[in-house]
Amino acid sequence: MGLIDTFLKGFGVKEGDYIEVVYDNDKRLRGIIMPKNMFSGDDVLVIKLDNGYNVGLKMERIKEIMKLDLKWPDSKVVLERGRQVYNDLPRVKILAVGGTILSRVDYRTGGVRSAVDPDELLDIIPEIREVCDIDVEIIMNKYSEHLTPSDWEVISNYVYNSYREGYDGIVLLHGTDTMGYTSAALSFSLNKIGVPVVLVGSQRSSDRPSSDAAINLLSALYAAANLRYSGVFLAMHSSTSDDRVAIHLGTRVRKNHTSARFAFESIGIDPVAYVYSGRKLRIEYTYVGDYLGLDTRGSTSVDFNPRFSDRVALMKFYPGMKANLMRRLILDESIDAIIIEGTGLGHVSDVVAEVLKDAISMGKYVFMTSQCIWGRTNLNVYDTGRFLLKYGVIPLEDMLSETAYVKASWVIGNFGSDALSELMPTPIFHDILPKSLAVGRKGCDG
Amino acid sequence: MGLIDTFLKGFGVKEGDYIEVVYDNDKRLRGIIMPKNMFSGDDVLVIKLDNGYNVGLKMERIKEIMKLDLKWPDSKVVLERGRQVYNDLPRVKILAVGGTILSRVDYRTGGVRSAVDPDELLDIIPEIREVCDIDVEIIMNKYSEHLTPSDWEVISNYVYNSYREGYDGIVLLHGTDTMGYTSAALSFSLNKIGVPVVLVGSQRSSDRPSSDAAINLLSALYAAANLRYSGVFLAMHSSTSDDRVAIHLGTRVRKNHTSARFAFESIGIDPVAYVYSGRKLRIEYTYVGDYLGLDTRGSTSVDFNPRFSDRVALMKFYPGMKANLMRRLILDESIDAIIIEGTGLGHVSDVVAEVLKDAISMGKYVFMTSQCIWGRTNLNVYDTGRFLLKYGVIPLEDMLSETAYVKASWVIGNFGSDALSELMPTPIFHDILPKSLAVGRKGCDG
Repeated sequence: MGLIDTFLKGFGVKEGDYIEVVYDNDKRLRGIIMPKNMFSGDDVLVIKLDNGYNVGLKMERIKEIMKLDLKWPDSKVVLERGRQVYNDLPRVKILAVGGTILSRVDYRTGGVRSAVDPDELLDIIPEIREVCDIDVEIIMNKYSEHLTPSDWEVISNYVYNSYREGYDGIVLLHGTDTMGYTSAALSFSLNKIGVPVVLVGSQRSSDRPSSDAAINLLSALYAAANLRYSGVFLAMHSSTSDDRVAIHLGTRVRKNHTSARFAFESIGIDPVAYVYSGRKLRIEYTYVGDYLGLDTRGSTSVDFNPRFSDRVALMKFYPGMKANLMRRLILDESIDAIIIEGTGLGHVSDVVAEVLKDAISMGKYVFMTSQCIWGRTNLNVYDTGRFLLKYGVIPLEDMLSETAYVKASWVIGNFGSDALSELMPTPIFHDILPKSLAVGRKGCDG
Repeated sequence: MGLIDTFLKGFGVKEGDYIEVVYDNDKRLRGIIMPKNMFSGDDVLVIKLDNGYNVGLKMERIKEIMKLDLKWPDSKVVLERGRQVYNDLPRVKILAVGGTILSRVDYRTGGVRSAVDPDELLDIIPEIREVCDIDVEIIMNKYSEHLTPSDWEVISNYVYNSYREGYDGIVLLHGTDTMGYTSAALSFSLNKIGVPVVLVGSQRSSDRPSSDAAINLLSALYAAANLRYSGVFLAMHSSTSDDRVAIHLGTRVRKNHTSARFAFESIGIDPVAYVYSGRKLRIEYTYVGDYLGLDTRGSTSVDFNPRFSDRVALMKFYPGMKANLMRRLILDESIDAIIIEGTGLGHVSDVVAEVLKDAISMGKYVFMTSQCIWGRTNLNVYDTGRFLLKYGVIPLEDMLSETAYVKASWVIGNFGSDALSELMPTPIFHDILPKSLAVGRKGCDG
């Protein structure tokens, strides 16, 4: 129990109470007592004001604290103040799928609840009013680990409808666990969509002082409203400081840390852009857009193929993997395609290679990626790889295994499994990068 | 075809020929024509001299090239020169398992062959003579993707015997694909071994100009001979420059790039040390040894438990993973323990959670790691995790999934599956790090 907690106890108030505080002689503020802020020290009271901003007050400045009846600020007024003034702003549709970014502790009831009505979003992040007009639609409210290929179909359809309704950009609120899988799914199902579709989540719920929810959402909205390029992107914190959010390509991004706010990384290439949110929001583009020739906003019309099949399996190879167990899984009649995460350049043991050979001879499709994550498969260097090629295993260059799984599901769903051999090794939305690309520490091929 | 190739053609010689070259009027050198060096430019002839060094000669300095009968240098003489002079050097045993580091193109026959006799190693890397006396033993010659738990037993026994013979350090030449799995295996089977055991490989074979074989091997030998700490380590290139090799903890290292020379990274902590090889070899220690209280050389005696079971499976969870397929694999009677790579903090879908519950009720053991690679599992944050805990799933903190797979195989092999619940979450050789550890960009917990 910290200093501040004892201090608050003296006034008969605690975290979550709605209070009026008197400080510096007779100045007054109203707001909700927030959890202790890791940056603010042990002698600082943090309160969330009615306008949505957090304020910290040193204990020594505080003369009096009075507990008020719990009263949420009147968001209608706030909303009108915002909307009426900035009526020529870009229009962005927010589609809520689920995840931490939607959860906040309700200080009125003590429970966790979703904060997805537009008024409330504007209360939490008042800066949104200066960025865009928003409409919010709740598609579902699922933790992302529970999503399935059929959920990707539902989400694809919602995004498509919002696109047809003429929004300038679309933002998806999504759990972070499988956000990279969904961003890949939408990259394929909504190929050549003419506006930015930006997935965003948060690693910490929005009422924790260290939360990344507000900055991520604000940056995602700013990108959806202003990004020069169209296509599917993922916006997440990119450094330990609080002012930079990376805009990743939807097929090349991976959650590489369980809990850190900077968990997401682009693989094999840098992010397309960064959104900085100091005094004023701004976008800084990297070389990626020019280098890859990304489609610009409004230059394309969507090639909508929203189906996803469940006839794909993803398997990570490991030394000692048993042939008989693998055989059972791979040869199952409910599976048409198998994505293998091999070792190194894309290798498996002799015994597993024999199972893959049998699967292919039965008409199944086997694709090779690497558990190394960075780099490119190459089955031409060693005997192990050359045998796999001979058996009919198809290497997927530098495609992420997660993206490959999603892509195979998409190919089968829309074009049938016969199309796998041709479409899997053909880049759709930068899921395979040119061989020559060599950037940064991890980007280069060798 | 480059300038130099045309130039060589004029003299009737080509890459791989053993030649005498006359240059700068009447100076003479003998050696083998090496492949073009990426750093040397297109007008430079690179030859490997009889003493093992490579020399580059600009075309304009060359007067004459004569092809000689292929004649490998007389390594006996070289060896004696080395051995006789430095007879008080540390003694290091080299155990050869396989992999790229052992392969070189034989310019006498044109085929790829293993270079594992000590004389030849001294020819290739003459600097070894100044570091240690070596003995070489070939255990097997396998690409590492073909290794199995029973191979880990064989390797463990060879290392143990070398240790008993009194060597100051032991170096294993190993394929890179599964080198991280084997280094974890030996970390457990040879816990508290009193000398450094250093696994080393190379990403490029030793006769390619950009090869990392020589620098990796030399640094591994230097570490085996001189490292202050004992235990199992993995030595590999750590930057794009050629002079730094990282010494990683055996349980915390992962191959994170398919082809780059700096592919291996320590996860959740920095390497224990770096070996620099400028004019003089030297070791630079990081904070890790003090922080973790690593055992120092000679301070412990080995706790030898060399058995590994094949009754473990490793599975990566992905959204849409089918319960029926997973059920078949997990409930198989040949499996006692399952390591799951969950999403984020250690999550799986409801349907997969039910399968895990059934597996546990059948007496199997289920352990949770994360496919994020960096960070720590935490099943207390969300409902998904809390249900898994209730079902009996055991989270493994920040243990790598590959290390967890190996560890479960080791626990069952030596102590039986009943020991899994207790031993898996108990650190043996830094396979779980203290919660408070927060270093570097990726090291921190949050």
